[in-house]
Amino acid sequence: MKVLGIDLGGTNVSMGVVDDTGKIVARLTIETRVIDGFESVVKRISEASSKLIESVGGVEGIGIGSPGSIDHKRGVVRFSPNFPDWIDVPLAPELEKRLGVKVVLENDANAFVVGEKWFGSGKGYTDIIGITLGTGVGGGVISNGQLLRGSTGIGAELGHVVVEPNGYLCGCGNHGCLETIASATGISRLAKEWKERYPKSNLSDFSAKSVMNAAQAEDPLGLKVLDRVSSALGIAIGNLIHIFNPQLIVIGGGVSRAGKVLLSAVKQRTRENVMRSFWGTYKIVLSDLVDDAGIYGAASMGFEEINSPSLENDI
Amino acid sequence: MKVLGIDLGGTNVSMGVVDDTGKIVARLTIETRVIDGFESVVKRISEASSKLIESVGGVEGIGIGSPGSIDHKRGVVRFSPNFPDWIDVPLAPELEKRLGVKVVLENDANAFVVGEKWFGSGKGYTDIIGITLGTGVGGGVISNGQLLRGSTGIGAELGHVVVEPNGYLCGCGNHGCLETIASATGISRLAKEWKERYPKSNLSDFSAKSVMNAAQAEDPLGLKVLDRVSSALGIAIGNLIHIFNPQLIVIGGGVSRAGKVLLSAVKQRTRENVMRSFWGTYKIVLSDLVDDAGIYGAASMGFEEINSPSLENDI
Repeated sequence: MKVLGIDLGGTNVSMGVVDDTGKIVARLTIETRVIDGFESVVKRISEASSKLIESVGGVEGIGIGSPGSIDHKRGVVRFSPNFPDWIDVPLAPELEKRLGVKVVLENDANAFVVGEKWFGSGKGYTDIIGITLGTGVGGGVISNGQLLRGSTGIGAELGHVVVEPNGYLCGCGNHGCLETIASATGISRLAKEWKERYPKSNLSDFSAKSVMNAAQAEDPLGLKVLDRVSSALGIAIGNLIHIFNPQLIVIGGGVSRAGKVLLSAVKQRTRENVMRSFWGTYKIVLSDLVDDAGIYGAASMGFEEINSPSLENDI
Repeated sequence: MKVLGIDLGGTNVSMGVVDDTGKIVARLTIETRVIDGFESVVKRISEASSKLIESVGGVEGIGIGSPGSIDHKRGVVRFSPNFPDWIDVPLAPELEKRLGVKVVLENDANAFVVGEKWFGSGKGYTDIIGITLGTGVGGGVISNGQLLRGSTGIGAELGHVVVEPNGYLCGCGNHGCLETIASATGISRLAKEWKERYPKSNLSDFSAKSVMNAAQAEDPLGLKVLDRVSSALGIAIGNLIHIFNPQLIVIGGGVSRAGKVLLSAVKQRTRENVMRSFWGTYKIVLSDLVDDAGIYGAASMGFEEINSPSLENDI
């Protein structure tokens, strides 16, 4: 069985055909070019998809992961900061019409956690929290084997749990959301704000990647930022453990490439926030799908649909 | 159809037979007398239950709500701060043996939210958060129609989400849990700590009830405490809305008797913490089952069992 996974990003669309052993047997990346308008983007995605599907002799399903607010049931992108002109656009139905294969659309962070269940560290688990640390912070939850969507399909906004009451203003209008600290944007800001206070720091550029590398090299500014980031993640993950009693927390997204220095700090801070009765009930890991997590996530939605096509999980 | 609901408390055991219209047709309260030991407590509960069941000509099921960590599947109280000597005691099987009717055991805060779904404000909803503000703070979650138990059955510890990082030390070992502020205990402490600073306050006793009454009467100390309590609840409920995208949040427990003064403040504070896209998706209400919420909660577990006796919701 093969499924096409389409990872729709603001800049690029990454596509890959995944087989049921988890191998990506064909792949293609095109530019998104949102500026051209929805019709044009759909046309180019469907053309590229056709080509890819043909090259592997057909697929049984197609999954798409998209940032923003998604109506999974109708296959509609309600709105997305990455595609400002797309309001209630029928992405899945349009692609399905052109490609003649069932297309499933899901929020990219939701798709991420389902991808981890199918192809990553989440295999065999029923209760998994996925957190993606990218430009923003996304979240997805599988509880008792089911993807948590919520009553109107907009749940699992884990980037917007408050970890620093009265903290930084967040894009969402609230203060002190996890996203204000633990996103790549948040990490850069912290480093810039603190740089004058750490004259011995060697940091010269303030990308999240450089800051995390600096922490790894025990640079004082890098360590300071890491401390605040891991503290924020420790509070958020601790809360999620008390709420969901999960077996696994998987951290993905670009920031997770920081690797062990981040993971160790997050594990320690989480443990500080977790009640004794929960010790030993959970594991925290970094996603090992990193670069292809978007394709795997999208494809896994297709596999889910094929495996349990009923609507019982739907809103 | 009739079910016996048993609300097991540290001081009293409240029992009531509930029919499927939600009427309590018979009731009885006995002392718990934990000091006598598990065997003796079980014996007295089963004797009182027998009497009650006989008085109504039989019941189709029995539900028990107990504080503490519960193994729902095996009907075992793993441990509970209220019953310090009970470690892994088979409460449901023992009662079932004596009474000859299926007995379902559940954590009391979980039972609370199921009770709201069956007999309270939650009728007809699929996504409900229940928060009980008592001596401690308990929580229960129904998501997509299912009670959230978590991978080892200890989830939905909503009293232990952090709302004040580095705040008061909580009984759980962490700092700044919701319970440290919004429980009856937390409210009393805040009032005592602040009393010297509010010489114009008329508060003389510092029970949560008096403090909330003072807030209602616009006493400055009462208002100050209410502000902090509602702020903490606003953060916690805001987070839960972002996570679960629920239709309803029901607040129960003794503190909820404060009524409108508490509800208005909590609604306002929650709205301050919730992203625009969630506005209009949820309602916050106080439980209207208050005094009988424990009986209704316990009985509703019996009704759930009768209506869907499969094990698919179980761990």
